[in-house]
Amino acid sequence: MHDNYDLEQLMELVQERRFRALREILTEMNEVDIAEFLDELDVEQEILVFRLLPKDLAAEVFSYLEEDQEKLISALSDKELREVLDELYMDDTVDLIEDLPANLVSRILRNTDASTRSQINQLLNYPKDSAGSLMTTEFVYLHPNNTVEESFARIRKVGLDKETVYTCYVTANRVLQGVVTVKRLLMSTYETKISEIMETNVLSVTTHEDKEDVAQMFSKYDLTALPVVDGEDRLVGIITVDDAMDVMEEEATEDFEKMAAILPSDKPYLRTGVFETWKARIPWLMLLMLSATFTGLIITGFESALAACVILTSFIPMLSGTGGNSGSQSSVAVIRALSLGEVEFSDVLAVVWKEVRVALLCGACLAAANFCKMLLVDRWLMHNPDVTVAVAAVVCLTLMLTVVCAKIVGCLLPMAAEKVGIDPAVMAAPFITTVVDALSLLIYFTIATRVLGL
Amino acid sequence: MHDNYDLEQLMELVQERRFRALREILTEMNEVDIAEFLDELDVEQEILVFRLLPKDLAAEVFSYLEEDQEKLISALSDKELREVLDELYMDDTVDLIEDLPANLVSRILRNTDASTRSQINQLLNYPKDSAGSLMTTEFVYLHPNNTVEESFARIRKVGLDKETVYTCYVTANRVLQGVVTVKRLLMSTYETKISEIMETNVLSVTTHEDKEDVAQMFSKYDLTALPVVDGEDRLVGIITVDDAMDVMEEEATEDFEKMAAILPSDKPYLRTGVFETWKARIPWLMLLMLSATFTGLIITGFESALAACVILTSFIPMLSGTGGNSGSQSSVAVIRALSLGEVEFSDVLAVVWKEVRVALLCGACLAAANFCKMLLVDRWLMHNPDVTVAVAAVVCLTLMLTVVCAKIVGCLLPMAAEKVGIDPAVMAAPFITTVVDALSLLIYFTIATRVLGL
Repeated sequence: MHDNYDLEQLMELVQERRFRALREILTEMNEVDIAEFLDELDVEQEILVFRLLPKDLAAEVFSYLEEDQEKLISALSDKELREVLDELYMDDTVDLIEDLPANLVSRILRNTDASTRSQINQLLNYPKDSAGSLMTTEFVYLHPNNTVEESFARIRKVGLDKETVYTCYVTANRVLQGVVTVKRLLMSTYETKISEIMETNVLSVTTHEDKEDVAQMFSKYDLTALPVVDGEDRLVGIITVDDAMDVMEEEATEDFEKMAAILPSDKPYLRTGVFETWKARIPWLMLLMLSATFTGLIITGFESALAACVILTSFIPMLSGTGGNSGSQSSVAVIRALSLGEVEFSDVLAVVWKEVRVALLCGACLAAANFCKMLLVDRWLMHNPDVTVAVAAVVCLTLMLTVVCAKIVGCLLPMAAEKVGIDPAVMAAPFITTVVDALSLLIYFTIATRVLGL
Repeated sequence: MHDNYDLEQLMELVQERRFRALREILTEMNEVDIAEFLDELDVEQEILVFRLLPKDLAAEVFSYLEEDQEKLISALSDKELREVLDELYMDDTVDLIEDLPANLVSRILRNTDASTRSQINQLLNYPKDSAGSLMTTEFVYLHPNNTVEESFARIRKVGLDKETVYTCYVTANRVLQGVVTVKRLLMSTYETKISEIMETNVLSVTTHEDKEDVAQMFSKYDLTALPVVDGEDRLVGIITVDDAMDVMEEEATEDFEKMAAILPSDKPYLRTGVFETWKARIPWLMLLMLSATFTGLIITGFESALAACVILTSFIPMLSGTGGNSGSQSSVAVIRALSLGEVEFSDVLAVVWKEVRVALLCGACLAAANFCKMLLVDRWLMHNPDVTVAVAAVVCLTLMLTVVCAKIVGCLLPMAAEKVGIDPAVMAAPFITTVVDALSLLIYFTIATRVLGL
C-alpha cells in the first residue's frame, strides 16, 4: 500500500512543535490516514496532536485509532470527551466501550445523554458475533403516508447524524414495511406517497443472525445497508457495508489462522506480543505433536519389517508428504466452498464422488511418474540395487491408495465438522496431514509386508 | 445460508407450465435469488422463464447469472438482447463480453449504440487485474460553478442509469476537482455553489492500479465508491463497493487455493469439472512429490546410522510434522499480514526477530513435553529399552532446532517472494513443509551421529 501522506514531514513538524502548520496539513488529510499517523506517535504527542484537530474531524479520527484509545480518553477532559462522543456513531461507541476497563466505561456513560446511554446498553447486550452487535441504531425512518417532499424535509432535519441516509426505512408502529432509496425519491415527484414507491420485498436479518452470514448477504445481494429486526419484525437497527467488509476481512483472517493451526487473534501481526503469539500457536502444536507420536507407534510396530528392508524408510517422507498435500487440497477447497455457501452438508455424496474421481486421476499420474522415476533414476541411473520392481510396485500402489484415502478424509472431515457445528476451518492442512500421515504408513506397511513377504 | 424463497414450489410451477403464477412470484423476488433459481434450470426452461421477467428486472437478473449466459444470449432475439443490454451497467456488460466467444461478442457490439460500443472497447483494453477493468463509466459529474438546485436537477435527469448517484464527481475540463455527496447536497441550501461544499481532498486511483490494492482501499477508508483517473488526472470511471467486495472475496479464495497448492480457479467448487479440478491440483502435487524425494535421499545417506538405531525412525513423523506445522504457522501469519498491508519487506528484521523469540518459546515447551513423554511413557510405561536418555536428548534437541529453523524459513520465504514479485501465498504450508522436512532430517541425523556416535 502506498501512503497518501508524508509521514516523515508530519513527524518533523511534531518534533519541532510547529503545531499551526501541522494543524493545517491535518485538516486536509483523510481521517483514516490521520489515525494511522497518531498510532505512530507516543501517547503524550498523540494527545497534543489530537487536540489540534477540529471537533468533527476529531471524532472520526478517534473511531479509526487502533492503539491508545484508552489512554487518550483518560487524558481528555469531560467536555472534550463529550464532544467526541457526540460525534461518534453509535456502533463505534459500542465497539469502543467493549474494549475499555470499567472505570472508563462509567465515565463514558456519565458523559452521554439518557437516550444514548439506553441505546448503548441495549447494543452491549447482543452476543458478540451477532447482527445485533454489528448494527447501529442511527438510521432514517419514514412513514408510508408521507409524501416525497415531506420525506426530504425529514432527511434534511435528522440525516446529519445518521451513518447512511441513502436507504430510508419505512415503518408503521415500528414494524418494517419497506425501504425507499434516496435515488428513488430523487426520481419521483414531490407529491408521490412513500407507500407508492417503496420496495416492499425487503431483505432483513434478525438481531441474532451470525455476523458471518450477514457479511455473506452483503456480498451476495450487493447491498450497501441491511435492516435488522427483532422477533416481532420491529426495526431496531441497520448494518452498513463498511462494517460488513470488516467482518469479511476478519473472518478470512480467522480462517487462515485456523487453517494454519493458530488460535485466532484480532490484532495486526506486528502489534501482537511474542508471548501472545506463543499462546496462540502452542496449543495446536502440542496437540498435533502428541498425535504424531501415534504415527511413530505404527513405525515401531513394523520395526522388524523396516530393518529387513531399510530402503522402504527413504520413501516415507515422499508418501506422507504427497498424502498430506492431496488431503489438504481437498479440505481447503471444501472449507472455502462451505464458507462461501457453495456447498452444504446435503451435498456430501456429490463432493465425495467428485473427490474420488479427482483422486484416482491424481493418484494414477503420481504413481506412474514415481514408478518411472524409481526405476530409471534410483535403480538404473544411481545403481541402487535395493530399488527392485517389487519395491517400486509397493511404493506406487501405496501412493495411489494414500492419495484416494487422503482426498476422501480431506473432504469428509470439514463436512462432518460443519454438520456437528465445529468450524470446518480447523480441519485444514495440519490436522489432515497428521491423520493422513498415520493412514499412509498403515497402508504402506500392510502392502509391503504382504507383497515383499517381510 | 438459508434461501429466501421456496425452490421446490418454483420448480413445480415450471414443470406444470403455470407461467402466470410463476411470473407473479418472480416479480416479487430479489434479482439475485431469481438468478440462482435460473441457474438450477435446464437451458430450455431457463430461456422460457427468463422471457417471463419484466424488462428492467430481466437485465438485473441476467447480470447475476453464473451459468448459461452464453446460451441465453444465443436464444434471445436482437430486440430482446438490445433491451437487456440497454439496462445492463457498463461494467457488467464488459464482464460478460470477456467470457463470450467472438461471434456473440460481435453480435452484442452490433446491438449497442456507438457511444456504448466505444466505451466497451476502451474498458476491454485495460489489463485484467487493473482498476480500469473493474470500473464503470456510468457516474454523475457536476460542475463546480453549479448550484445545489442545478445539481439536483442534473441528478434527476441523468441519475437513473447510473450505478450510484450518492457520490457525485466535480470535474472541470474532465479533470477531477472534488466530490460531493448527496447527503451534503441535501444538507445545503439550494443556492449554495458546489465549489463551496465539495470535498477537494479526494482519494482516487489510476486505471493501472492493481485491483487487490483497490479493494484494500475500500476496506481501509470505508468507501462506497472510488474515482478512477487517467495519467492526466482526468476522471474516466468509478469503482463501486459491491465490485470491491467481490474482489476481496475472490482474492481470499485465490490465497486459500495457493496456500493449499491448488492453481487458482474462478468457478464454484461443485461447478468445476473433475478434469479441471485435476488440472488445478496435479502440478503442485507432482512438483512437491519430486522435491520430497530429496528428503528420501537424505534418509538413504544415513541408512547405516538408521540400521544401527532403528528406534530413531519412529520419531521422524513427529519431527517433520511438528516442523511443518511450526513453519506453516509463521508463513500463514506473515502471508496474511503482507496481504492486509500490515507488514512490508522493510519490516523483515522485526518479523524474523519476533519469530525467533516465538520459536524459542514454542521449541522449549515442545521439547520439554516430548522429553517427559519419551522417558515416562515410552521408556518407563511401555518398557522400551531403546528409548535411552541419550536418544531422548537427541530427539528433543532436534525438535528445538527444527522449530526455530522452521519458523525462520516460514517467515522469510513469503517475504522474499513478496520482494521478488511472486505471490507470497505460494510459500504456504505445502511448500514450507517440504523444505522443513528435509531440514529437520538433516538436523536429526547430524545430531544423532555425533551424540550417539553412529
